[in-house]
Amino acid sequence: MRAVDIIMNKRNGKELSREEIGFLIGGYVAGEIPDYQVSAWAMAVFFRGMTAKETAALTDLMLKSGASMDLSGISGPFVDKHSTGGVGDKTSLILAPIVAALGIKDPMMSGRALGHTGGTLDKLDAIPGYRSNLEPAEFRRILAKDGFAMTGQTKDIVPADRLLYALRDVTATVESIPLITASILSKKVAEGADALVFDVKFGSGAFMKDAADGEKLARSLVDTGTAMGKKIVALLTDMNEPLGNMMGNFLEVEESLDCLEGKGPADLMEVTLELAARMVVLGGKAKDASEGRRLCEQALAGGKPRELFLANIESQGGDVKKFLEMRGSYRSPVSAEIRAAKPGYIARIDAWKVGHAGVDLGVGRNRTEDAVSPTAGVQFHLKGGDKVAPGDLIMTVWARDKPGLAAALPQLEESVEYSGSAPAKRQLVLKEIG
Amino acid sequence: MRAVDIIMNKRNGKELSREEIGFLIGGYVAGEIPDYQVSAWAMAVFFRGMTAKETAALTDLMLKSGASMDLSGISGPFVDKHSTGGVGDKTSLILAPIVAALGIKDPMMSGRALGHTGGTLDKLDAIPGYRSNLEPAEFRRILAKDGFAMTGQTKDIVPADRLLYALRDVTATVESIPLITASILSKKVAEGADALVFDVKFGSGAFMKDAADGEKLARSLVDTGTAMGKKIVALLTDMNEPLGNMMGNFLEVEESLDCLEGKGPADLMEVTLELAARMVVLGGKAKDASEGRRLCEQALAGGKPRELFLANIESQGGDVKKFLEMRGSYRSPVSAEIRAAKPGYIARIDAWKVGHAGVDLGVGRNRTEDAVSPTAGVQFHLKGGDKVAPGDLIMTVWARDKPGLAAALPQLEESVEYSGSAPAKRQLVLKEIG
Repeated sequence: MRAVDIIMNKRNGKELSREEIGFLIGGYVAGEIPDYQVSAWAMAVFFRGMTAKETAALTDLMLKSGASMDLSGISGPFVDKHSTGGVGDKTSLILAPIVAALGIKDPMMSGRALGHTGGTLDKLDAIPGYRSNLEPAEFRRILAKDGFAMTGQTKDIVPADRLLYALRDVTATVESIPLITASILSKKVAEGADALVFDVKFGSGAFMKDAADGEKLARSLVDTGTAMGKKIVALLTDMNEPLGNMMGNFLEVEESLDCLEGKGPADLMEVTLELAARMVVLGGKAKDASEGRRLCEQALAGGKPRELFLANIESQGGDVKKFLEMRGSYRSPVSAEIRAAKPGYIARIDAWKVGHAGVDLGVGRNRTEDAVSPTAGVQFHLKGGDKVAPGDLIMTVWARDKPGLAAALPQLEESVEYSGSAPAKRQLVLKEIG
Repeated sequence: MRAVDIIMNKRNGKELSREEIGFLIGGYVAGEIPDYQVSAWAMAVFFRGMTAKETAALTDLMLKSGASMDLSGISGPFVDKHSTGGVGDKTSLILAPIVAALGIKDPMMSGRALGHTGGTLDKLDAIPGYRSNLEPAEFRRILAKDGFAMTGQTKDIVPADRLLYALRDVTATVESIPLITASILSKKVAEGADALVFDVKFGSGAFMKDAADGEKLARSLVDTGTAMGKKIVALLTDMNEPLGNMMGNFLEVEESLDCLEGKGPADLMEVTLELAARMVVLGGKAKDASEGRRLCEQALAGGKPRELFLANIESQGGDVKKFLEMRGSYRSPVSAEIRAAKPGYIARIDAWKVGHAGVDLGVGRNRTEDAVSPTAGVQFHLKGGDKVAPGDLIMTVWARDKPGLAAALPQLEESVEYSGSAPAKRQLVLKEIG
């Protein structure tokens, strides 16, 4: 078997065998196949796609390139949720304690902010003392005790993806549905969940700009994950506006607690509860999504999710007392306001522009090695659909430093789209696939 | 400018600017852009193609990545011919002295055998003493004296192509018309010719298997070369059968001399004279191809081309006396015969199979570092269109060694296609483009 023939077969539109894909991926991880052959193959995959069989083989081979989390000895069901990335998306922090309150274990391995999208680990790290990188033994102990645990991926989880993603990032081969599918699924299956709910976002602030592409990815995730023996559901959700009223690391932890106290904004609660409802169904605790949602709402009303949220902070080294004292006041001193320029309605606050401004403010980062600020961010006082008069406060903005603020403000001003009449209400959850 | 954006633009079907192509190629040659980005870009070019403007820019930038042959001080016109590669194709050895006899200078830089195709330099090296790698000063002196000189490319000619071709070879990105065009043309323009005739071969023994693809390449070579200010004509010629009656290094030199003595086989003479006729036209010595051909035939009849052929051997260090003595007898002792298995007609002797058998015999090589044999090869006593009875001698075969002979014989047997009725006559020169 030769790598060049495998590249040529893919280039010519042939279906690759599991052996061929394994030769390439295994050889790459072993350092025997050079990156210039793998990047040419990835570009051929971009153009030719992959069959369901090829995608499942690639995902499984990537999974087996490294270790999987061992959850033996802990009672399930294990259900996790994964989002394709958005702006202001803190649903993970809210739904994990909700489903845990209903007896579902969520072994959550998350990522960090990159580009315009936020990262769960950066948000958690804004809590004083919180350790978001747990040893496997600690992770298992906390998962068993609190019903959920939050950590980053360890080095030995899917090393093939770390190599392949870094290569795809610099060779314009990121935007390939089978390659995205294999990257996401291999890591999620490695964390040990039996069932997965995918939040596939579409819109300006999402990776997939239109719903049709989002649906293709959702379908690919469901089909491939199902072929690997997992229970999978995907929701296609709107990411044209930031989710909720807060964007920023500490700000989003605060807003998550607000949600668990019954004070969450409607858009954020809607997406969170719809995702959580599916987790409850996949975990066998409800017969359908509407029953699942009712159980989640009952749990919230009972206060158990809030307790588990604070218990997890404590379990992962955070200082709960200090955290609660900092609430509402832990903000960067460098701040500004965005006020309405015109009368009428806000048609939309563009998530893409807000996300990019977030990198300047210090919420996110463009390079994985950059640091983020816990106290930078944006609070939205008005959002799409709201009536507005000139001078009304739309956003409060906090930046890491003055140059960052200066760079972000024009983008935030531009992110506000006005309309003379009331805009149509956005449908946040467009479709269920699975 | 970032390489990843250039790859993405090409991937998305945008036309690249000269600056973008220059950034990529220049950076690659300088070692600043890694091969994994260039291979991904080459695969994107394979799928998206290039516009005429992009192809011309790439060719020119590759040309300027190195030195060009300086022919100043020698009187022109300088006209060369380039073949895309075939089996038994020794037209270069015959037409160079023919056009030189008509006052045209042919500064010929050739390549070596690779895969199933033969190489002019390997053939010349079969002549005792012949040096096919000349210093530039020697090359100019011999070109001025004999009207043609034969050499390999020096290291400083188009280094971008050496790098890029080696990368394309292992990343399944060879078969791209704009990349082939830039590779061929940059090297041919660097050798200093004012005008070029391309022999674009199609058929089983050619790189392009069908005439339509061959015509696309011919059109691309003509358009790009013309855009670079050169006079260009291409002929589309049939390479389904080996050209002439000899395949082998010394065997083909012998057959070339036969042609210059008026004893050449009809197919080889036809292709050679059609190509030479275009060189004469481009060199301004004839008003059209039929006048060009008549002049070539007159020159041949006068004996001057044969004199120049032998003069060149002497000029390049060859021993003419010894060469002439070896004629007809310099053969490997390991030999065999292929005889007819059936009565009827030979429909075709498949050039692809003969070419591959040639590698086993020692005529060619699969890896550039392998040595070839001067005395291995095949003599065809019968070819496509000939009537045949069982037991008739079709080929005499000479191999470097016994294992090579054993490997080649079944392929050579298989290369003979029989027919119950007389096959249609092949049209050797299908089309002129330019």
